[in-house]
Amino acid sequence: MEKLADVIENLPLVDHHVHGALATAVDRATFEVMITESSVPAPSGTTHFDSQVGFSIRRWCAPLLDLAPHASAEEYLARRDELGNDEVNRRLLAAANVDRYVIETGYQGDATLGLEPMAAASGRPVHEVVRLEAVAEAVARDGVGAAEFAETVRERLAAHAETAVGFKSIVAYRHGFDVDPARPADAEVLLAADRWLREVSASGVARIADPVLLRFLLWQAVDLGKPLQLHVGYGDADLNLHRSNPLLLTEWLRQVEGRLDVLLLHCYPFHREAGYLAQVFPHVYFDVGLALNYVGSRSIAVVAESLELAPFAKQLYSSDAWGPAELHYLGAVNWRRAMTRILGQWVDDGEWSFDDAVRVATMIGSTNARRVYGLPE
Amino acid sequence: MEKLADVIENLPLVDHHVHGALATAVDRATFEVMITESSVPAPSGTTHFDSQVGFSIRRWCAPLLDLAPHASAEEYLARRDELGNDEVNRRLLAAANVDRYVIETGYQGDATLGLEPMAAASGRPVHEVVRLEAVAEAVARDGVGAAEFAETVRERLAAHAETAVGFKSIVAYRHGFDVDPARPADAEVLLAADRWLREVSASGVARIADPVLLRFLLWQAVDLGKPLQLHVGYGDADLNLHRSNPLLLTEWLRQVEGRLDVLLLHCYPFHREAGYLAQVFPHVYFDVGLALNYVGSRSIAVVAESLELAPFAKQLYSSDAWGPAELHYLGAVNWRRAMTRILGQWVDDGEWSFDDAVRVATMIGSTNARRVYGLPE
Amino acid sequence: MEKLADVIENLPLVDHHVHGALATAVDRATFEVMITESSVPAPSGTTHFDSQVGFSIRRWCAPLLDLAPHASAEEYLARRDELGNDEVNRRLLAAANVDRYVIETGYQGDATLGLEPMAAASGRPVHEVVRLEAVAEAVARDGVGAAEFAETVRERLAAHAETAVGFKSIVAYRHGFDVDPARPADAEVLLAADRWLREVSASGVARIADPVLLRFLLWQAVDLGKPLQLHVGYGDADLNLHRSNPLLLTEWLRQVEGRLDVLLLHCYPFHREAGYLAQVFPHVYFDVGLALNYVGSRSIAVVAESLELAPFAKQLYSSDAWGPAELHYLGAVNWRRAMTRILGQWVDDGEWSFDDAVRVATMIGSTNARRVYGLPE
Repeated sequence: MEKLADVIENLPLVDHHVHGALATAVDRATFEVMITESSVPAPSGTTHFDSQVGFSIRRWCAPLLDLAPHASAEEYLARRDELGNDEVNRRLLAAANVDRYVIETGYQGDATLGLEPMAAASGRPVHEVVRLEAVAEAVARDGVGAAEFAETVRERLAAHAETAVGFKSIVAYRHGFDVDPARPADAEVLLAADRWLREVSASGVARIADPVLLRFLLWQAVDLGKPLQLHVGYGDADLNLHRSNPLLLTEWLRQVEGRLDVLLLHCYPFHREAGYLAQVFPHVYFDVGLALNYVGSRSIAVVAESLELAPFAKQLYSSDAWGPAELHYLGAVNWRRAMTRILGQWVDDGEWSFDDAVRVATMIGSTNARRVYGLPE
Repeated sequence: MEKLADVIENLPLVDHHVHGALATAVDRATFEVMITESSVPAPSGTTHFDSQVGFSIRRWCAPLLDLAPHASAEEYLARRDELGNDEVNRRLLAAANVDRYVIETGYQGDATLGLEPMAAASGRPVHEVVRLEAVAEAVARDGVGAAEFAETVRERLAAHAETAVGFKSIVAYRHGFDVDPARPADAEVLLAADRWLREVSASGVARIADPVLLRFLLWQAVDLGKPLQLHVGYGDADLNLHRSNPLLLTEWLRQVEGRLDVLLLHCYPFHREAGYLAQVFPHVYFDVGLALNYVGSRSIAVVAESLELAPFAKQLYSSDAWGPAELHYLGAVNWRRAMTRILGQWVDDGEWSFDDAVRVATMIGSTNARRVYGLPE
Repeated sequence: MEKLADVIENLPLVDHHVHGALATAVDRATFEVMITESSVPAPSGTTHFDSQVGFSIRRWCAPLLDLAPHASAEEYLARRDELGNDEVNRRLLAAANVDRYVIETGYQGDATLGLEPMAAASGRPVHEVVRLEAVAEAVARDGVGAAEFAETVRERLAAHAETAVGFKSIVAYRHGFDVDPARPADAEVLLAADRWLREVSASGVARIADPVLLRFLLWQAVDLGKPLQLHVGYGDADLNLHRSNPLLLTEWLRQVEGRLDVLLLHCYPFHREAGYLAQVFPHVYFDVGLALNYVGSRSIAVVAESLELAPFAKQLYSSDAWGPAELHYLGAVNWRRAMTRILGQWVDDGEWSFDDAVRVATMIGSTNARRVYGLPE
């Protein structure tokens, strides 16, 4: 197991779904809500640090900030301030040993580093994934008429497709996967766009949630044929988690087979369901990112569950880190530790060969993502 | 791990959701249906003792009755009869090392010890949780008119709130969590009460299952603001288990945030879903009681799964024992053994500090319940 | 654990749900789609051998073909061709150490061995399970009129009941368990039969998917009272997996209690849900076949999860192998290995007695199936 640990420790990863690291230092209250999917402070008398991710930060990140493992939250945050956010980013991103970041910039971009700053902070190449809904909302804010909406969105997405390596949809958040799988007719889209654009004008807020428009966006991605990431499962309190079960997408997946690759993100607690889809559909891939960070010591169990039905060529690594670079680092720590323990046990028990274990870790950690997104070696 | 085992072994627990122990001795057939959630005898040629809970009784309870571990079911029941039910209650409740019992008395109260007898049998303080549906049914049996129903229920619940530390709802049993989350209008409640009270008069049976009335009760609990326990997941054959998935409550949980604390009970096999809700909503707590007893040797796995997304301040211990004091004892045995093995492994692996492990076990075993229900130290 | 391993290794199993082994040699492309529930080749640059089942074949079957463990897929298939399909069948079926096969012949019967050839290839007795839908489709192909459809199906099923030990339904595939649980009225069946038989005439294809007719078949099985197998959970891309959750059958299970035994097959990822049903309903049994093969090294975890709520008298062994005899063998290998590791750990930890471990392995591996299907010792 030691030999395997060494190989996996030094494997340069492709983090195929991630966001920017923190752009500036934040106070404790802000930091606390950045290490949970809750959007509010912990109840009085408690702290978000008393969680798997909080314990992981104190265990694994503290030494990189020159503290003892298990330093208190107070010590940790004091030292973080002392070093400064830039230095913390630099240290943690370097320690993550990620070769390439595939970054999605559609969520609260101001608080986090953009593409170029992330490349600078990490010293590694970055690639972009564009959020479909963010493009449509930008079009709406720019003041397009309903008659031009569909065509304008189409053009903008096509322009993004020139540089982006893929797209992402958050239909799971905005409606749920229980949408009609069929491509909406032009007339339906026109009607829905008209209704929504009036709302945007009236409210000044452009938040797309109309199921017809969300389906229109999904099918635009199908036409463009680039890899499409879908938020699945675990996320924040905005979500109706049971409507983000990827099995609800089965009929849509059937309809788009052969047109594009679909990457199911996170998936917890539906990662076994995702593994089933990844086995039976040739164009379906998945990861257990985000969960890795938030289940901490339990990531061994979650990664193990992801290694059941899904072929090894259909799984990817991601951290889904957003904000604190602790999350960019811990995603990698938890994944490496989990893979080492799981595959190492199988090698020790004589069930897998050592070479196969190395090969599978490399496929999931990097090769599969390079193949799907067409990234350079 | 031995040091941690010692600490956890001696931790006085708060059993925050439990019922009374058996009031009198029962025959084998009766005992068998009390150690399963089935309501009928095992198929011919089989026995309910051939189950995880049956094996746990023979393994862990037998020595407390002066038998060898793994004594046969026959030997066990013979010795139980010999000692008498009172002595068995006394031995097993003492061995559970529970500091305080939070008891719900709404289910088949005659067969089990009430509040005072439980305090006497265990030698420990007890607190009461009142089942909303039982109060409404008592009001119906007392012969109230539809026009006075809502107000009468409101008054009775307010009176209970003077002494009870919380309420409980079994809406999962009586309808499912797929109820309309909104507070029902007074006129709706009046209409539904009228319909139901006529049925009660006609049938002589007061079993509340009307979704409007069930929602009325939930919102009464919201108004009272005391902790509200909700039966979630695993239970008997009366249940439509898929409709007791706590995610179906998401919208209702959003609406009542800040008004009261909600405690999701048992949750199996939806404990990961419960852990998600406990992370993203500040007022949501949960336990894996009941399952602890019935999965026996597998409680290590189930407790481990409960230690994923949920903050450590949002989890509680319960046995949900009802009837045989074996269940009051085994809930504690299984929880202590599981926590020792899981946290002990993390300490051994250097992932958690010993102090954190002790602190988390204490929070889940006792402190969290004391804080939520306002129990004395 | 070694002593237990020895006992479980030598336990003659009843494989209570299985299909025929491959009738003839196949090329690599064909073999690859037979070791996945996908119906298409793996994406370009990947192979279905890079999966748990592929690794298991290379690990466990290779030595039986005189190769080293972990031989490459190429070496394995070359050696398989060299030996010939009959010899491979003979070796792998013998190594499975299955005492009796309960075979369902309703799926692509031409590619696989029928009842007698399987008995000859394995040297063991076989029993038949008849697929309800296949009988109805045969009736339709034979050209019956709508008025005679119900009665003709009834007669054919009754005739099958003379020799078959049970029936099977694939309502999960053809519609989902979200069917109306009630027995359809004769007039409804007549109408549905008339509609369907016209379609069959017009299209020349007899594929039964009408929910009224599927329910009619289920209730015919109830009337006949023989054990009824139901496909549940994991299967191929034809399935809407979320509609094969066995909890959706709860109300139907209530209605048929006492009329027949129901055997839930596979169940993954709903095996915990199946375990709940097997506990609360006296007529419900289940297995984790199929999954055993396809999760490979993870079958320890899956079998462990199946040993939670379900009484030990309510679980069975099956491989659900279809085609390559590798699957007939690996089902047994994975089950024996899993049971040895799980029960052996419990014995080592002093939680279970050795005798109980042997007894439970024997019940699940053979006794329960013999009792339910009425098979000879």
